Amino acid sequence: MGSPVIGVFDSGFGGLTVLKALLEVIPNAEYLYFGDTARLPYGSKSVETVARYACEATRYLEQQGAELLVIACNTATALAFDQIKNTASVAVVGVIEPGAERAAVSSRSGKVVVIGTEATTCSHAYRHALAAREVEAHEKACPLLVPLVEEGWVNHPVTEEIARIYLNEAFSDGFRSADVLLLGCTHYPLLKPVLQRAAPAGVTLVDSAESTAMAVRELLSSTLAMATRAKKDQVKFFVTDSTDKFRRLGRLFLGQEILDIAHVDLKE
Amino acid sequence: MGSPVIGVFDSGFGGLTVLKALLEVIPNAEYLYFGDTARLPYGSKSVETVARYACEATRYLEQQGAELLVIACNTATALAFDQIKNTASVAVVGVIEPGAERAAVSSRSGKVVVIGTEATTCSHAYRHALAAREVEAHEKACPLLVPLVEEGWVNHPVTEEIARIYLNEAFSDGFRSADVLLLGCTHYPLLKPVLQRAAPAGVTLVDSAESTAMAVRELLSSTLAMATRAKKDQVKFFVTDSTDKFRRLGRLFLGQEILDIAHVDLKE
Repeated sequence: MGSPVIGVFDSGFGGLTVLKALLEVIPNAEYLYFGDTARLPYGSKSVETVARYACEATRYLEQQGAELLVIACNTATALAFDQIKNTASVAVVGVIEPGAERAAVSSRSGKVVVIGTEATTCSHAYRHALAAREVEAHEKACPLLVPLVEEGWVNHPVTEEIARIYLNEAFSDGFRSADVLLLGCTHYPLLKPVLQRAAPAGVTLVDSAESTAMAVRELLSSTLAMATRAKKDQVKFFVTDSTDKFRRLGRLFLGQEILDIAHVDLKE
Repeated sequence: MGSPVIGVFDSGFGGLTVLKALLEVIPNAEYLYFGDTARLPYGSKSVETVARYACEATRYLEQQGAELLVIACNTATALAFDQIKNTASVAVVGVIEPGAERAAVSSRSGKVVVIGTEATTCSHAYRHALAAREVEAHEKACPLLVPLVEEGWVNHPVTEEIARIYLNEAFSDGFRSADVLLLGCTHYPLLKPVLQRAAPAGVTLVDSAESTAMAVRELLSSTLAMATRAKKDQVKFFVTDSTDKFRRLGRLFLGQEILDIAHVDLKE
């Protein structure tokens, strides 16, 4: 079997941290990345709207040849995973289950703090996924963290102050003994140093981007050829808003240049 | 002539500060408010995308009976005012010209700092409008202020710290003598106390929401009946995302309950 074609979908930029992790653990696949940048962010939108957008995007990725779909967006996974699975005719991997599994394995106290967007935390998708593993979750919405990342203030003292305010609230009352901080938003890996400093001492950070990449590798392990060197043109990018902005900002998330990029319009 | 029907358009919530100002100065009109909440924010999107969304929304307001359109969104006015005017068959008022006029009249030094979203400042719409009045403008993008307002942190010390960082950068170099701060985003009126404290002493704040309401009253003055008491059902709201969230958050912006609200879907 040749290289698998993996479709990666996100509302915008955050999914690039998942793509980055995928490129590290499955370097011999081909990737199609779809960023719905004209309609981002999903984090503050309703279930119906997010489900409609996500299904349109995943249909598009299948039409382009994706043989496996990765929903690299916590909000879309939390709100619309079942609808996406019903729409898709290929296997679909979301970010919630892999992140919850890794958090459950990492926690000794059985208590985990999950941070994410308003929509992700309100859906309680992480709470349910962790409860199924007998772990208690405190979900805390942190709506300022995404704009701080997009402003480029990933190491700014203000960002650390805001992170401290959010985490002090989250690790309180019944969750003073929580020992894992699960990053339930694909923007947050860029804030790892700040979040580690702002969290109580001894707390382990679990990154759902990394956990998802590992889950995809496991799923493909039976069909994957031995890892070969990555090719230069192995990722095609599709975005619904300006390609220039995606190229500029996307580089921060992906950690490398964004080359082959096309604008698509889902509104026919 | 009876009450005029005024259509007010915004990407989401910010335009409610313009509606609030309109209700104060033209209490005897009827209003149709359209918030494109499923596709907000416009501030980080490209010209083409914003123009398409804004034209769809204004066509909808005309179909609902709007006799005058107010583009209560700085980004849409900055990026797509001409396209909207070409699409519309009724008079259109944007927020840029009234704000620029008021700022020009208020400045003695002939230097003005304008703050707004990335898209508004990159368009240089305020710089051009002020240059036409022989006033020099320094435009500064402040992308964190909208999420801070939407988080409800309108009087938070972190918000003041961030405002101070932005304004220190803006009132520097050639603009140390600027004496007006023009609020080029309809979210910012909620931050007036914080911005006044963070700005250099003696700086006058000019609010484009208020200025726009005054411009609309002037435009209608010849046809307006004498002001009568406001009616309870004088505003109809249309939004593209969840009505619940709009009702909850919108109240903060409008300063009163949001009653008659309908969900609309522009994607046919």
